[in-house]
Amino acid sequence: MKVGRSSLVDQVAGRMESLIDAGEWPVGERIPTEMELADQFEVSRNTLREAIRALVHAGLLQTRQGSGTYVCSSSVLEAAIRKRVGRADVLDTLEVRHALEREAALLAAVRRNAENLEELRSALHDCRSAIKAGDGQAYLTADLALHRAVVRASHNPVLIDLYGHLTDPLESSIRKILDASPGQSGSIPSHEALVEAIADQDPERAMEAVHAYIAEFKDTLLNE
Amino acid sequence: MKVGRSSLVDQVAGRMESLIDAGEWPVGERIPTEMELADQFEVSRNTLREAIRALVHAGLLQTRQGSGTYVCSSSVLEAAIRKRVGRADVLDTLEVRHALEREAALLAAVRRNAENLEELRSALHDCRSAIKAGDGQAYLTADLALHRAVVRASHNPVLIDLYGHLTDPLESSIRKILDASPGQSGSIPSHEALVEAIADQDPERAMEAVHAYIAEFKDTLLNE
Repeated sequence: MKVGRSSLVDQVAGRMESLIDAGEWPVGERIPTEMELADQFEVSRNTLREAIRALVHAGLLQTRQGSGTYVCSSSVLEAAIRKRVGRADVLDTLEVRHALEREAALLAAVRRNAENLEELRSALHDCRSAIKAGDGQAYLTADLALHRAVVRASHNPVLIDLYGHLTDPLESSIRKILDASPGQSGSIPSHEALVEAIADQDPERAMEAVHAYIAEFKDTLLNE
Repeated sequence: MKVGRSSLVDQVAGRMESLIDAGEWPVGERIPTEMELADQFEVSRNTLREAIRALVHAGLLQTRQGSGTYVCSSSVLEAAIRKRVGRADVLDTLEVRHALEREAALLAAVRRNAENLEELRSALHDCRSAIKAGDGQAYLTADLALHRAVVRASHNPVLIDLYGHLTDPLESSIRKILDASPGQSGSIPSHEALVEAIADQDPERAMEAVHAYIAEFKDTLLNE
């Protein structure tokens, strides 16, 4: 009986996780009411409430008093990484992000396809425009899009997941640190070198470009 | 009232997580009975049961019918990574592990202390002995200890955590793949080069050694 209830709660929580994972319940949105969900899943409201509390504890959902329950993370892994990164030093997290990025550059040089190249060039173009316009926040957005495109071109789903989960919570810290910065025009050459190396399918040069970019970025952060 | 109960369950689950995190409830061990825990935390058995179910759902605890509840993971992050790695390709996970390892080698060359060097040399010695004895499983254990020592020498806590969580579930797959292998004597030179480069505080050579090791290891896995 105990086991039965445990697995029923687990099943309902698992189904809600799938809805979040599939984007049917997007991050930031309110989920249906308890009554609607109890009907939908054909379980008692107690079972449903308990499943919700399990997902609240896991960091996927958040209950706001008087307003309902909201999705606050896209997966348990993301929530766990967000929590871990939340109490970490920004530079420590950056080092991990860069570790993933360097491997991604290496793999991207080997595996990139035409669509990847198009994404990379378009993001690089946006970086240049943002620098010209002196718009630091637009630069950060374009820069992030460029690095995500590099990681996507690695075609390694574990790398893509970890990188994404690590980068989201990191981004807000970086935005705060670089708040007043007009955009780092100095990093355009290393970004160009990275995209060219990936286009030329040259893993060594791709890794060198990331290495150069990392050194510049650390300097910028440490000097802010 | 709903919020109160939710936060009480969350608090109890949080306290149990802390006990697991601190190693007071070690992985593999049975936790105290519901009655004992309800007494200890001064909550009702219903609240306690629900907190346990939340941790079961998060992958930290496992309830075995008729036998009790056991700790099966040291943290939510570990459980989430274990789940993600569990449905991933072994080579994809290896690439991520190697990404972290390369960065660790670079940082270790800069930050290693006397204690780190001692650990590295002792693990290298064990690798050599295992090869001499032709003991493939002992080699894997010594090899893993060496790579963990490299990552510890990076002194980056986020890197150390992610690497550990990624390596544990990966280890059993690798053991299975290399089951009949007598140990790879060919990888000793690149491991020696890695430890020497870290001792000499030479980040470039340390990364090159990891690069060589990765290429060899992928070859071994692909040829099994």
